[in-house]
Amino acid sequence: MSLHARAVAGPEIERLIQLLARLPGLGPRSARRAALHLIKKRETLMSPLSSALGDVLGKIVECRVCGNLDVCDPCTVCTDPEREAGTLVVVADVSDLWALERSGVLKARYHVLGGVLSPLDGVGPNDLNIASLAERVPREGGARGHPGTRRHGGWPDHAHTSRSLRGYGRRVTRLAQGVPVGGELDYLDEGTLAAAIRARTPL
Amino acid sequence: MSLHARAVAGPEIERLIQLLARLPGLGPRSARRAALHLIKKRETLMSPLSSALGDVLGKIVECRVCGNLDVCDPCTVCTDPEREAGTLVVVADVSDLWALERSGVLKARYHVLGGVLSPLDGVGPNDLNIASLAERVPREGGARGHPGTRRHGGWPDHAHTSRSLRGYGRRVTRLAQGVPVGGELDYLDEGTLAAAIRARTPL
Repeated sequence: MSLHARAVAGPEIERLIQLLARLPGLGPRSARRAALHLIKKRETLMSPLSSALGDVLGKIVECRVCGNLDVCDPCTVCTDPEREAGTLVVVADVSDLWALERSGVLKARYHVLGGVLSPLDGVGPNDLNIASLAERVPREGGARGHPGTRRHGGWPDHAHTSRSLRGYGRRVTRLAQGVPVGGELDYLDEGTLAAAIRARTPL
Repeated sequence: MSLHARAVAGPEIERLIQLLARLPGLGPRSARRAALHLIKKRETLMSPLSSALGDVLGKIVECRVCGNLDVCDPCTVCTDPEREAGTLVVVADVSDLWALERSGVLKARYHVLGGVLSPLDGVGPNDLNIASLAERVPREGGARGHPGTRRHGGWPDHAHTSRSLRGYGRRVTRLAQGVPVGGELDYLDEGTLAAAIRARTPL
């Protein structure tokens, strides 16, 4: 952007552009394009988007059972009668829950820890929803940990999760680690490749 | 996305994701990420964005002088006292106006045609703001055409614009066509390269 760059339009539009630029996936340039697109489609897109944001904003709550973010509490997943009662999937973040749901493979309920253990960042067990997990397990069944809960630089909380669930007589599993389906070995990080080699399965 | 993909959250959130996915630069996947980001930052981002959309939505108007989209009519550019009175920049679209403004080089006023002549798509001179341009020119001065007004497949409306402005004793120019500053010849289309060769300037 030039040193002489000026506001193209009134401050309301500039403010909209600045806010859109803070969305993941949009930068200053694409935010400007998005704002103009919204303004041109104000009847068919901007107005519905404004309503949708207001709707969600007024209704969004954290599910007190699992920690999911939804417009109802308990959330859509927790109240779904078709979920297996015996399995609880432990994830670090709501985005992990959404990703697993998109796969459509699981029919379980979830427990969102709300982060990963990271002593360097001052995140300890009491900062995460671990106590409530230990309370849920005797009622709800086995637990599965998502490998995403262990992040680079974070304390491996599989060990912690697993320890805190010991003694309930439940099976604790974690997602398999390995080569993505259709993935090219050349593009894989060494850690994943090493894990995939260690956990080879017989043909 | 799997055949078994389910709605992760309530219909309000799914609706928000669908609307975000219609913004240029966002797809279904990044729209989901953007929605989650908004929900997590509901105080600092979602709420201000909702207000900003409402503000713009309630105030946006098409400038009756130049065709720009702004929150005031006449628009910020038309009412700017520092603009040269003698130059009028003719552009196809509001996005062209915004792009030229970002360059900060011009101190002129604009005229937005609202499209390009395209007989195949049924867009003729009467569908564009050409009559109002011819009315403005005697009052406001010379006109410059943006080469962007001629698009692949569109009728070259420089000829038309130029014809409709003939007889007012004004100078009509168009932006120079050539190699972008710092551009690599290897990546340029043949049309631009041919234009740059034809319009060589002495060193």
